[in-house]
Amino acid sequence: MTTRPHVVIIGAGFGGLSAAQALARAPADVTVVDRENHHLFQPLLYQVATAGLSAADIASPIRSILRRQKNTSVLLAEACAVDLANKRVVVDCGALAYDFLVLAAGATARYFDHPEWREWAPPMKSLDDAIEVRRRVLLAFESAERELDPARRRELLQFTVIGGGPTGVELAGAIAELARALARDFRHADPRTAQIHLLEAGPRILSMFDDDLAARGLEQLHELGVNVFTHAVVVEVDAHGVTLEGGGHIASATTIWTAGVEPAPITRTLGVTLEGGRVPVEHDLSIVGHPDAFAIGDVASFKPRVEDGAASKPLPGLAPVAIQEGRAVGKAILATIRGKPRAPFRYVDKGIMATIGRSRAIAQLERLHLSGFVAWLAWLVVHIVMLIGFRNRVVVLFTWAWSYLTYRRGARLITGLDHAPSGVPARPYTCEDALARA
Amino acid sequence: MTTRPHVVIIGAGFGGLSAAQALARAPADVTVVDRENHHLFQPLLYQVATAGLSAADIASPIRSILRRQKNTSVLLAEACAVDLANKRVVVDCGALAYDFLVLAAGATARYFDHPEWREWAPPMKSLDDAIEVRRRVLLAFESAERELDPARRRELLQFTVIGGGPTGVELAGAIAELARALARDFRHADPRTAQIHLLEAGPRILSMFDDDLAARGLEQLHELGVNVFTHAVVVEVDAHGVTLEGGGHIASATTIWTAGVEPAPITRTLGVTLEGGRVPVEHDLSIVGHPDAFAIGDVASFKPRVEDGAASKPLPGLAPVAIQEGRAVGKAILATIRGKPRAPFRYVDKGIMATIGRSRAIAQLERLHLSGFVAWLAWLVVHIVMLIGFRNRVVVLFTWAWSYLTYRRGARLITGLDHAPSGVPARPYTCEDALARA
Repeated sequence: MTTRPHVVIIGAGFGGLSAAQALARAPADVTVVDRENHHLFQPLLYQVATAGLSAADIASPIRSILRRQKNTSVLLAEACAVDLANKRVVVDCGALAYDFLVLAAGATARYFDHPEWREWAPPMKSLDDAIEVRRRVLLAFESAERELDPARRRELLQFTVIGGGPTGVELAGAIAELARALARDFRHADPRTAQIHLLEAGPRILSMFDDDLAARGLEQLHELGVNVFTHAVVVEVDAHGVTLEGGGHIASATTIWTAGVEPAPITRTLGVTLEGGRVPVEHDLSIVGHPDAFAIGDVASFKPRVEDGAASKPLPGLAPVAIQEGRAVGKAILATIRGKPRAPFRYVDKGIMATIGRSRAIAQLERLHLSGFVAWLAWLVVHIVMLIGFRNRVVVLFTWAWSYLTYRRGARLITGLDHAPSGVPARPYTCEDALARA
Repeated sequence: MTTRPHVVIIGAGFGGLSAAQALARAPADVTVVDRENHHLFQPLLYQVATAGLSAADIASPIRSILRRQKNTSVLLAEACAVDLANKRVVVDCGALAYDFLVLAAGATARYFDHPEWREWAPPMKSLDDAIEVRRRVLLAFESAERELDPARRRELLQFTVIGGGPTGVELAGAIAELARALARDFRHADPRTAQIHLLEAGPRILSMFDDDLAARGLEQLHELGVNVFTHAVVVEVDAHGVTLEGGGHIASATTIWTAGVEPAPITRTLGVTLEGGRVPVEHDLSIVGHPDAFAIGDVASFKPRVEDGAASKPLPGLAPVAIQEGRAVGKAILATIRGKPRAPFRYVDKGIMATIGRSRAIAQLERLHLSGFVAWLAWLVVHIVMLIGFRNRVVVLFTWAWSYLTYRRGARLITGLDHAPSGVPARPYTCEDALARA
């Protein structure tokens, strides 16, 4: 090892960023590689998808966050493969040799064996995803307003969210509230007649929460008029809706996928036997057999020790897990550089929360269970505090206050009408056709 | 005519919107047709392109602006052709019969006889255009940071703006300031070495301003380090830069086009002899020979009467012109419905302004010429007041204050990396190539 070791961090999500920040004053050169130029505050992504916040409000340039860390450089590039044996990362524009590796590449949407469903049920993982969902949701209302056939108009006002986890619940609730916010803006199609369906394949939604809170969440969704289906296993998704196991069909023009994630594909290049797709790690978060390479966050399968009082199932893919793991890995690398032993990682569970809409939320903080307005206030404070950047905090807080008081949505922007990236055609009609008819 | 006449307004820019608002209490049904769902505050478009503001900050949903006008509906559709004889507008999804027409379709970028230049020198007319320019500008800095070849790195840090009107000047100044704002964020390529070139085909920039102010504008651009070329006639644009008449070549990886506009193509469907591409109108802004069809803003060629003390050249394509024309047409339609005569339109020139950067601007208000900080303050107040929507005003004002104090840019977002709409490849390298090399 040279006097200044090189730490390569793949991914600037919650885990990668917290690892980088823990190495701020380390006697090491740090390179953060990410395929996007921004760190994304994923917990608020659904608000961009439903026109509550602007994209820039929940994204901060990675460079900007790390600009004071003189030992750290940021590379906008896609990490393609890790060569653990030779301590090298292949990136799209070349290769990086490392002394320490932090694999924090996160997760992508998982469509099981149906990649073709993505076209009609886009995912909700990146900012581009959220902008595409926003485009589709807002366009559905626009198309309904323009539609003369009542049956087709009804179909255009049906929205289906697949997946009853926090993202699906928050998104379904936010679409229901968006429909209300739009009420006065349309003349022909009434947004209040919109139907929002939430499909969960398992026996109940919000399965990571205790029964009582999940039931409160369900109640709050019902108050917003969301139709919740459990045991709803999707067997087909197309332009006209979703077909369920057993033959049920939900006719809906707009479908969104939040039903599953899987670790980033780079994990499959490690040559390590994965556990449920995730990389098995030691108690110091290093990859089994590779003490200088760590995996954290959604790509890692970390099982708390039984003596730490936890079950043997791996920690879930949550922001606090990634943040704490990133910090621990930063410390472990520092310890190793200084020739000291590493402390085993211990996760401190601070609880989980989900918001269902205006003044509605659930929060599970150890044995303290909150719901309704109090939980919503707690959710609000935690998310403002966690958000990166003073400007973003002020703008988000102001935008929330404004939306709360006016019942309006500030970012109802349809972009990319002329070059829709995929799927649902942005401009269903053309002038050529219209002029041929005329 | 039925008891409630139907007014069709094509375009919800400054002109169309002001016409619609003037008809708020008219005994008429109003339909506003626009191909986008938002009204765009074009004067601040360059700030979106240079990461100063978010897209949603300068765009408001047309429906939202007009939601209290119960007699008005908004149609998201492309207007394809006008049939003046049969009083009908063909739109992409059908046709609209009208009693009164307001053609306010605005202008598009004009590439003279070189549509192929658009790929390498995108225009700056729509929000999608601005987001694409932002993507290219930010990516140029990212690519320079990643580039090892010094010659190519230099080329990546060269930016060329074609067109020395207010948009070109404001954009060039803003790119120069963006480069300074990025200084501390990069480790390998120094953004402060970026070169910004502004090309003007005519003898001087800002030709709509008086000589002394245009000279001040030029001075302020020089202070920011922008290289200004006049008599610079472009004969070729490609991935590597711009070739000028006479053989000069500017090597630059990023080029933006602000050099010319032309009225929207729908003007060519009218069957009217156009004047410089624009629709000749009477003194009441009606299209010659069609008293119930009006043309306003960038599509109209309105020549003030000589007795109003003006020259015989048509009014320029400015927001105040479109706004005043829209209001006048609304009044003219109301007068006609009430069986009263129409007043001829008189333009009240309130002056023109352009901003060149932080504390730098020029303003020409009749005989009062301002420049520097005072002009910049005046510019700031006018633009905040003109912006539509309380939320947008507060967020823009806060963002400007924050940028002014911190020298930072809040919306440095690269979106659409995986599905770039056109031209410059967003991801120049691929994992396939990298893995094949490795």
